[in-house]
Amino acid sequence: MNSNIKKLFSPSSLAIIGATDRKGSVGNELMLRVTEYGYKGIIHPINTSLDTLMGYDVPDSVLDVQEVIDLAIIAVPAAVVAKVLTECGIKKIGAAVIISSGFREIGGDGIRLEQELIDIADKYNIALLGPNCLGVINTNPRVLLDGSFAPLLPEAGTIGFATQSGALASGIINVMPSLGVGLAQMVSLGNQASLKAVDIINYWESEGDVGQILLYLESISDVTAFKEVATRVTKTKPIVAIKSGRSDFGAKAAASHTGALAGSDKAADALLSACGVIREDNLSDMFISAQCFSKCALPKGKRVGIITNAGGVGILATDEIVKRGLSIAALSGKTKQALRDSLPPQASVSNPVDVIASASVAHYERATELVLSDENVDILLCVYLYITGRNDIAIVRDLNAKKKLFKNKTIVAVFMTSEDFRARLSEAGLKAEVPIFAYAEEAVHGLARLVERSEYLREKNEPSPATKADKQTAAKIFADADQNGHPPTTYQALEIFRAYGIKTAKFGLAKNAQEACILAKSIGYPLVIKLDSCKISHKTDVGGVVTNILNEAQLISEVEGLVTRLTKAKLMDGFNGIVVMEQIKASREFVAGVNRDPQYGHLIMFGLGGVYIEALNEVNFRLLPLSKRDAKALLATGKTAKLLGALRGNEAANMEMLEDTLFKLNQLIADFPQIDELDINPIMVNKQGEIFVVDARIS
Amino acid sequence: MNSNIKKLFSPSSLAIIGATDRKGSVGNELMLRVTEYGYKGIIHPINTSLDTLMGYDVPDSVLDVQEVIDLAIIAVPAAVVAKVLTECGIKKIGAAVIISSGFREIGGDGIRLEQELIDIADKYNIALLGPNCLGVINTNPRVLLDGSFAPLLPEAGTIGFATQSGALASGIINVMPSLGVGLAQMVSLGNQASLKAVDIINYWESEGDVGQILLYLESISDVTAFKEVATRVTKTKPIVAIKSGRSDFGAKAAASHTGALAGSDKAADALLSACGVIREDNLSDMFISAQCFSKCALPKGKRVGIITNAGGVGILATDEIVKRGLSIAALSGKTKQALRDSLPPQASVSNPVDVIASASVAHYERATELVLSDENVDILLCVYLYITGRNDIAIVRDLNAKKKLFKNKTIVAVFMTSEDFRARLSEAGLKAEVPIFAYAEEAVHGLARLVERSEYLREKNEPSPATKADKQTAAKIFADADQNGHPPTTYQALEIFRAYGIKTAKFGLAKNAQEACILAKSIGYPLVIKLDSCKISHKTDVGGVVTNILNEAQLISEVEGLVTRLTKAKLMDGFNGIVVMEQIKASREFVAGVNRDPQYGHLIMFGLGGVYIEALNEVNFRLLPLSKRDAKALLATGKTAKLLGALRGNEAANMEMLEDTLFKLNQLIADFPQIDELDINPIMVNKQGEIFVVDARIS
Repeated sequence: MNSNIKKLFSPSSLAIIGATDRKGSVGNELMLRVTEYGYKGIIHPINTSLDTLMGYDVPDSVLDVQEVIDLAIIAVPAAVVAKVLTECGIKKIGAAVIISSGFREIGGDGIRLEQELIDIADKYNIALLGPNCLGVINTNPRVLLDGSFAPLLPEAGTIGFATQSGALASGIINVMPSLGVGLAQMVSLGNQASLKAVDIINYWESEGDVGQILLYLESISDVTAFKEVATRVTKTKPIVAIKSGRSDFGAKAAASHTGALAGSDKAADALLSACGVIREDNLSDMFISAQCFSKCALPKGKRVGIITNAGGVGILATDEIVKRGLSIAALSGKTKQALRDSLPPQASVSNPVDVIASASVAHYERATELVLSDENVDILLCVYLYITGRNDIAIVRDLNAKKKLFKNKTIVAVFMTSEDFRARLSEAGLKAEVPIFAYAEEAVHGLARLVERSEYLREKNEPSPATKADKQTAAKIFADADQNGHPPTTYQALEIFRAYGIKTAKFGLAKNAQEACILAKSIGYPLVIKLDSCKISHKTDVGGVVTNILNEAQLISEVEGLVTRLTKAKLMDGFNGIVVMEQIKASREFVAGVNRDPQYGHLIMFGLGGVYIEALNEVNFRLLPLSKRDAKALLATGKTAKLLGALRGNEAANMEMLEDTLFKLNQLIADFPQIDELDINPIMVNKQGEIFVVDARIS
Repeated sequence: MNSNIKKLFSPSSLAIIGATDRKGSVGNELMLRVTEYGYKGIIHPINTSLDTLMGYDVPDSVLDVQEVIDLAIIAVPAAVVAKVLTECGIKKIGAAVIISSGFREIGGDGIRLEQELIDIADKYNIALLGPNCLGVINTNPRVLLDGSFAPLLPEAGTIGFATQSGALASGIINVMPSLGVGLAQMVSLGNQASLKAVDIINYWESEGDVGQILLYLESISDVTAFKEVATRVTKTKPIVAIKSGRSDFGAKAAASHTGALAGSDKAADALLSACGVIREDNLSDMFISAQCFSKCALPKGKRVGIITNAGGVGILATDEIVKRGLSIAALSGKTKQALRDSLPPQASVSNPVDVIASASVAHYERATELVLSDENVDILLCVYLYITGRNDIAIVRDLNAKKKLFKNKTIVAVFMTSEDFRARLSEAGLKAEVPIFAYAEEAVHGLARLVERSEYLREKNEPSPATKADKQTAAKIFADADQNGHPPTTYQALEIFRAYGIKTAKFGLAKNAQEACILAKSIGYPLVIKLDSCKISHKTDVGGVVTNILNEAQLISEVEGLVTRLTKAKLMDGFNGIVVMEQIKASREFVAGVNRDPQYGHLIMFGLGGVYIEALNEVNFRLLPLSKRDAKALLATGKTAKLLGALRGNEAANMEMLEDTLFKLNQLIADFPQIDELDINPIMVNKQGEIFVVDARIS
């Protein structure tokens, strides 16, 4: 397949099927774009109703062309597409782009028509892009292919951009010139009938022209392949993705119980994070990150040194740096002294270094040199406001030079200068080799992404370790429950956990008050009792849980009371006994669980439990199988992490044990993939940081 | 004072003291700027060492000028400023801007020099701006004053901008042309020796040229006046403020206990929110809001209708709208039918309305008309990407016309078009009357701010109602404690609350086990006992709290145990007895409190309690005295609000009672302003939503 994808991006010759002279039509726009941009290969316009076009002979079919054709760009009515695609197959054309719409996106007949295309592409091994797309672009000067009908010609650069919205591709080409980044290659994915985002990512991995990959996705169609390929590719090239449709989850979250929390957006998020893909919420953030990835060395750490000629912007940058979890570098005494010797007396030589409004180019040059030389600085954020003397171009020259000199330091800039800056820059024959933003918050967003990627690349990752488990016992319990036509009861679920070595509060099953008293002797008071039933999984709703039982008399009366209540309420059908459990005095409650997303497969979650689960929605998700990095991320993300730490006289939770619990759940699902849903709510953490699973549900 | 501030902004004549011909010097830049911009009044350059400058006579002193002078702009060395300012006073010049630096900001002698300036300004009633500032600007065509040394001339508009960073003022003037907004008036506040931000806001209230006020502040110097003036002005003009130095709090928050939580940034936040000032974190957001306030009608509601020719951007806009708490309008059946009749068959007529890539201007015109006519739509977000046919200018023309037609609807646009759009727009002699952004997230940020302001203006606000309170009893308790040289004990604090009608759990004070048993009879089990001591306020730290006491035997043994422990630990000094308290079974814990910020005065807080206070930091703050709106905001902001709602079988907390508790605290502080700190931790909310104060500390 890959050799044919190469023909999609770098064809030696191409046919435009449906090329016309009708102004404004797609077939005409395509011809214009391909020729205007200066395509380096041979062009064959194809049309049954034309003889010549723009000086080219126009045969009726690709079959009438003698020479080899690498790529067909097809813009004919939907009904004819299958026929011309078949001809492409017969002609042994390796790649095809179907611009035409009227397929799966219109439903009904369109779905059937699209399936035909897939079958033809499979039969003839055609790398098929689309249908219903904007086309393909390759800015390599040896190719110069603009096989799209976007009105503007693309700016060249190192970005590979794959987008599921064709119109957006056009919008992006429009705004790119002002962003200081450009495209190496672009595809509009369209309906992804055959080639999918993952195939393009896979191809770009070894495409030297593509330095980073940007994605705009509305769905992820092949999760397993995506996870494998993206995880591999992010080790060498950054992938920045927008996955739109976040608010779908927003709506679901409102209804929220554990199951609903794992809406598909959370799943997409889990997938992208696990793969090391940087997910952006919006286009502005995506382009900021793209600028940084295309022009910056990855930082060795996150200590930022700021140089500014405007104190206010220095403070704003500081606020953002702290907010985004980066740190303000503590400059060495040596650096400060050297700054003091070089700068005007009113300058501030602590970080942020304020070179003051009157700073000359020489002041900037000296300050950037000193700050970059400081071993406590990983990143330089250079702020320049045009206040007195227009030094912007000279400062770009300095920053370009410093980037060459300080290869292991990261440099970004914030300029608030006159509007014609970019024009003057290009007049001066200069290109900014560092990203230049208008606002500090933009620069800091980019820096945060650089640091995130740098940390990702440094992290070791391994699969979840296999854990010792009594799989047979668990299998037997599942089989028993299955045979009786119900999911495992509370007791059975706890027994399954026990078989997998997951630490629970002490528990046992009693058939009656007498048995409960015997169990109580070995467990000790205070106790909790819980209904164990094949029919009732939400015990609390039927008053099936009693806490705080302090002695035998109370135990007997509560067990008997429970049975009486259930009998009265006609809920004894499926009664299996009473779980007698040690009562844990917890200072914090968490929740863990697994559920199955129809599209993404098994998801594991961990977060704040109790009443907080709904109100705070502090829950992290990862896809199974779980890696060691995933397990750490589940526990170390957001406010969950803070609540697991030492707090007000409570020791930090035993993280090793928590990770181990996650690994064991991972193993359990691997062993029993038929599990649809598993809830551990709550996992209690006591004052000493010990962990106890107290209740569970498996279905 | 106001008549003199008017002379600052709209002088009929001005003196530039320190005007020179030395290129690049501030005195020269000022002369250039004032003349270049075409100042409409009379200019008097003043310099002891020049006779003429740019064709003007140059006297040595303002005292040598015969004519009346309204404004002096002073750019002479710090040491001479007091002398020339005195001359200005003698000459009866009403306003002065001191550009010169070398005052409070350098400490030492500078502080003394600055005090001299204040004294002179007071003596001669001079409206004094600065020192250490960039100057003053008024773009009114009858004035045309650029009395600053920013290199670029300002773009005219309706914004009043006051900034505490002079350099930033220059940066803002640089970037404004690309933002589609302009300045009416600008001041660089400098050291605010005399005129402060609040004076300028006060002046701008009645300045017709100023439609909205933007502030960049690093500190707020006169909190009481600011609160009064800003609360009044925001009723008629939007105020958008950046208060930098947020991260200061970030650092403090890490250490966090209740007291530290009320760091000064939280206080600033409380102040700005209470005044109806919109606080932005950064400049990009501020300018987005400014564009919307200058070009949009305030929305009647928050239902957004989206029109787009690119489905992808429609989804991204939807995500942002949901994220920001706005809603996606449900278009009426009539609107949908009319859209279906007017648009191509592939168009989507549900919101977001996708007019598809090929949409003509006529399609847009019809779609905007239909969506704006729909009574379910408050706001139109119109997205246009240049895909086929460049229709951007025509769409601006349409949106301008629609803005006139649909006066009670809000319109914003997102354009991703060719880079020369603004140039073509001005070639076409057009001005966009609606804000046009490059990205959906920017437009939605602006819309969120418009909706926020619209809701603010609709809200009625009243001061906190006076509450019935037994002030005498409380006064007696305070006096008793004072006399004994300690803050009120736990029991005394609870008694004070009781006197103010704040609902506490049932409690009483016992001197020994026997008294405790008597109290227990009227309170009922389970019980909690707490040490009451004049010396120990952190009872838990010394094991001074025992919970879950279920019967008399246990009560006796625990009371005796507590006394024995304390005696052994030599902590009986100050022992006042044992508080015996009803044990509340709570499903949620909150915290309320008051503390005094040295700069902002008394702050009241409310948020999540227990271990969550540190980990989640979900605490809201307001300044005292509390208004009804403040009380609602304390309870209705962020995740605190969610946790007060109905949750998993727990009824919503009794909000009326909670508000009332806040009002009572407000009254308590009003009656006893000597209170430095007051902690109610926790306030328990039980399953039924009832509220109980369980522990308190006053100091």
